[in-house]
Amino acid sequence: MKLTILGASASTPKLNKHTTSQLLKIKNHLILIDCGEGIQMQLRKFKVNFTKISHIFISHLHGDHYFGLIGLISTFRLLGRENDLNIYAPEGLQELINLQLKLSGSWLNYKLIFHTLKSKRQKIIFNNEDFIVKTIPLNHRIYTNGFLFEEKFDERNIYKSKIKEYKLEIIDIKKIKKGEDIILKNGKKAENAIFIKKSKKSKKFAFCSDTAYHEKIIEFIKSVDFLYHESTFLDSHSDLAKKTKHSTASDAAKIASAANVGKLILGHFSNRYRSQDDFLKEAKFHFEDVELAIEGKKFDI
Amino acid sequence: MKLTILGASASTPKLNKHTTSQLLKIKNHLILIDCGEGIQMQLRKFKVNFTKISHIFISHLHGDHYFGLIGLISTFRLLGRENDLNIYAPEGLQELINLQLKLSGSWLNYKLIFHTLKSKRQKIIFNNEDFIVKTIPLNHRIYTNGFLFEEKFDERNIYKSKIKEYKLEIIDIKKIKKGEDIILKNGKKAENAIFIKKSKKSKKFAFCSDTAYHEKIIEFIKSVDFLYHESTFLDSHSDLAKKTKHSTASDAAKIASAANVGKLILGHFSNRYRSQDDFLKEAKFHFEDVELAIEGKKFDI
Repeated sequence: MKLTILGASASTPKLNKHTTSQLLKIKNHLILIDCGEGIQMQLRKFKVNFTKISHIFISHLHGDHYFGLIGLISTFRLLGRENDLNIYAPEGLQELINLQLKLSGSWLNYKLIFHTLKSKRQKIIFNNEDFIVKTIPLNHRIYTNGFLFEEKFDERNIYKSKIKEYKLEIIDIKKIKKGEDIILKNGKKAENAIFIKKSKKSKKFAFCSDTAYHEKIIEFIKSVDFLYHESTFLDSHSDLAKKTKHSTASDAAKIASAANVGKLILGHFSNRYRSQDDFLKEAKFHFEDVELAIEGKKFDI
Repeated sequence: MKLTILGASASTPKLNKHTTSQLLKIKNHLILIDCGEGIQMQLRKFKVNFTKISHIFISHLHGDHYFGLIGLISTFRLLGRENDLNIYAPEGLQELINLQLKLSGSWLNYKLIFHTLKSKRQKIIFNNEDFIVKTIPLNHRIYTNGFLFEEKFDERNIYKSKIKEYKLEIIDIKKIKKGEDIILKNGKKAENAIFIKKSKKSKKFAFCSDTAYHEKIIEFIKSVDFLYHESTFLDSHSDLAKKTKHSTASDAAKIASAANVGKLILGHFSNRYRSQDDFLKEAKFHFEDVELAIEGKKFDI
């Protein structure tokens, strides 16, 4: 999985400070998570072949997480998109997008498929041969979901080198894929296991924005490789964090530590802070492997 | 009047190519005309004290003319705006904005006053002591208005130098302002006219976007000082212009010439053209005083 940060600021976009959006590549699937205003320009800036985006996940309906979506949908139409676009979002977004299309007298050349999220419990909302997506119910002022992305691997991947080495026939390969042992050309039996790559560990990425400090999410994000967790404030503004149901850098790091994640990425920074260095410092007190979400930054998961 | 171009591209925004929006300053009034996606970032880029915007005029509900509006409205709230904001727009925008506010669980600290435009005839939609705004009914795929802005001047502006020269008392000044002649200290009568500045000609700016070539607008924009007229295409694409109800550079220039305007500004350029030089060339064949709308460009009207 490859993650690109498109925007990491809270509440209102400024020059080169876009609001929440992340691009996730899982195998050949291009996925957008949240879509603040101007994100279509960010996608162009970072030279993303963004017409390939097939799935868009919207955490909640505060504007800094979705105001760029209608523009992207319109641009897809103008670029002649024909492939389906799947949108996973809380109730209301479908009505809104349909109203905007109606008002503009516009039609779409492609199918917009809405998957309305309503449940306050964890649900599997996407599942194919390559990856699975589950919601992470968060605690914010309005109905909000985080998302857990889990890559899948083919369990029986044969070493190409072994095919050459043992001059395997197609019939042998089929047997190996089924998990059977085979008889080699020299008449000896060869065990199935020697041909099979150790299957890679399935990587997991959890996206949690926006949320108050919320220990209930720990069970859902246990041992994920990467956790993105919002940190709108520093501890010096913990009163504001509580009032607005956001987290501080410490909150995010405590959750990361309790869930024993691989790496923590902080983001959704309030514009009140000139620099984000203190977010790193504050978080590292509770959890070592932490990085900042910065526009254009890429992570290999 | 001072005009700043914030965006001049058609249909979809790209890096440094924002869609239609213009900022008009009339005396101390700050007015926004159309508001494509990302315009709040443009306002910051060009260092506009944009919380002072008091009136927003939206020509029509194609996204490239209003997708940035909800973001601006939200940012005003976050910046603690208290002053009323007046929005002049076609039917549907109020419903849309209200739905977006409802979905985000947001309230506004200030009053949002919608003035719904429905008429297909010219209407006066704003009138105070400083300026007057009238619609210009356009011919586009959906209901669309242009806008005519007309500055007003105090008709009886006294020369300061004359006050000194004739040592005028306040009672004299009051008489002059009423249009009366006065008796000078030397007993001679002085005619009212010698004290009064020739009142400046009331300046007019007409904004026409988007529209097919439409001769009916000529009567509404007769002799305006500045005409902004869309020119999405060049004549080589006049078939596309007709089909999509847009104008070519020639169309715009012919209208400017027939209406005998002072200066023509072209904009709403299709992204298919690499350079806009041909727009100038094509327009100048029909009308001499023509300029291109370029992001950040300012015009003194």
